[in-house]
Amino acid sequence: MNLQKFSIDDAAFERSPGQEADVFVGNLVDERHGGPVTVGYGRYGPNQTLAETLTVHDVMVVLEGRLSVSTETGTVTAGPGEIVSMPKGEAVTIRSHEDGAVTAYVTHPHWRVAFVT
Amino acid sequence: MNLQKFSIDDAAFERSPGQEADVFVGNLVDERHGGPVTVGYGRYGPNQTLAETLTVHDVMVVLEGRLSVSTETGTVTAGPGEIVSMPKGEAVTIRSHEDGAVTAYVTHPHWRVAFVT
Repeated sequence: MNLQKFSIDDAAFERSPGQEADVFVGNLVDERHGGPVTVGYGRYGPNQTLAETLTVHDVMVVLEGRLSVSTETGTVTAGPGEIVSMPKGEAVTIRSHEDGAVTAYVTHPHWRVAFVT
Repeated sequence: MNLQKFSIDDAAFERSPGQEADVFVGNLVDERHGGPVTVGYGRYGPNQTLAETLTVHDVMVVLEGRLSVSTETGTVTAGPGEIVSMPKGEAVTIRSHEDGAVTAYVTHPHWRVAFVT
């Protein structure tokens, strides 16, 4: 694996698996490349909701818009430049606001492998 | 480990170890918290240079300013919203431009443990 630089235009977005919301993910580095983490961009339409139990440790960096993430212990809201660190096993509900959101994410291990397993 | 949200004001910056440039790192999640990755913010003064051989896999998301990262095979330059994925073992020179830079980073495994070992 080599050093690589990415912008959001490099991402091939697909619907986040297992749900119907306008939430899209685009992996840039993943299990195909041999490293330990998956790296990509996420794109959320306005006022979308995604509920899932995390099969991986997931770090989101909000680049545009705002996201609120709720667990049974409360809700945090993150805007541009803020980070949400979500541990594996947590049941989360992620909600975008009226402007949607763009994120960069890093997961360990690879979310696609964990999701299928 | 719980879900957590961070902004740059949460980071306690310290000089990046082993060098003298105006490059500072502030871990938010690391080996103290039991998860697999270190998460933090980086802050680069104007026109600084940091050369190191990576002891961990390091993903940088540029939040402000610009950084150029050089290896023996070439140089990439990243600005706000862009990602640089740097594999463990790579010898890199990271250079900030006239406006300095702010990054979010995720490393696997924990860089502080790898650096000391």
